[in-house]
Amino acid sequence: MGPDASRRSDRARRAILSATRDLVAEVGYTRLTIEGIASAAGVGKQTIYRWWHSKAAVLFDAILEVNSQEEGRVALPDTGDLESDLRLVLRGTVATLIEPANDRLQRAVTAEIQTDTVVAEELVRRLLRPQLDACAERIKIGIRAGQVDGSVDAGLAVELLFGPIFHRWLLRTGELDQTFADGVLDMVLKGLRPR
Amino acid sequence: MGPDASRRSDRARRAILSATRDLVAEVGYTRLTIEGIASAAGVGKQTIYRWWHSKAAVLFDAILEVNSQEEGRVALPDTGDLESDLRLVLRGTVATLIEPANDRLQRAVTAEIQTDTVVAEELVRRLLRPQLDACAERIKIGIRAGQVDGSVDAGLAVELLFGPIFHRWLLRTGELDQTFADGVLDMVLKGLRPR
Repeated sequence: MGPDASRRSDRARRAILSATRDLVAEVGYTRLTIEGIASAAGVGKQTIYRWWHSKAAVLFDAILEVNSQEEGRVALPDTGDLESDLRLVLRGTVATLIEPANDRLQRAVTAEIQTDTVVAEELVRRLLRPQLDACAERIKIGIRAGQVDGSVDAGLAVELLFGPIFHRWLLRTGELDQTFADGVLDMVLKGLRPR
Repeated sequence: MGPDASRRSDRARRAILSATRDLVAEVGYTRLTIEGIASAAGVGKQTIYRWWHSKAAVLFDAILEVNSQEEGRVALPDTGDLESDLRLVLRGTVATLIEPANDRLQRAVTAEIQTDTVVAEELVRRLLRPQLDACAERIKIGIRAGQVDGSVDAGLAVELLFGPIFHRWLLRTGELDQTFADGVLDMVLKGLRPR
């Protein structure tokens, strides 16, 4: 593929992912179709099928793109300061969730996975599990550095950090903002300190 | 109303709430109708409208009934042992969520509130907020009894307890069971102890 064809491909790919995000936010996952995406992106259906085998596959690439996450390449910052590294991640998570277009996109997917366990498994495998695991790895570094008690289950600690944020957001029990993210982090870290 | 009429009323009410739970679990909230409930419960539509003004109103009474919760009357056990009182509540929450019929019911409602903020507000006001507040009250008793550090924000602590449970359940990131509930409680309590 020459440079022009490659640029056209890249432009088409980004148009498809962007159209997918807009559409699923607007009509929900059930009514999302490859035809609809193609039409909104201004490409032929065959262009989409060349790169993706299903609407779920397109959707997850669209979500990964907006989460700035390359498959299998999630890593947390490690500045040596566990607290500030985790604060960055939690604030980033909140910022992503409350950004309006992304809020609608992720809510559509969340609604879908309440009944569709195949899509749920994809979401966990491709997006959620890598994020949780990367965060657990950062906490394990904190354990080795003596900043976190050696008895701490890092995987569980991560769920204590992300759980309250998603709980508020999904069940709409309160305002989700950076103050809340900071409060969760401070309270969880108190329980993780070496004793 | 004589005793017979009262018994008939009560039987009809329970049939309606039970039919509502079955139906919403089966067809989802969007396709739930008063006609459908009436037909499944073996009553006339006018019987339902005598007691409820909308399908959302019926649904919330149906959910409250299965959560054994009377409106405005949530209270946590207070045996003097904060840990065992909270353990009872968290285990009860997990048991309710994973019970198959109730799992489908609550997932249908959760899917609905991703787009329907009116239903979301009702859910929070009638079901979730009273539960969270009751749990916060129990933690405040723990603060006064010197079992919890005086600087603890009880409302935030409650979200640390329930957040990870709902996060696992809603996003399907792992198995939700009593072991997990116990692990969350133990880790959160470590951070709450007086220092």
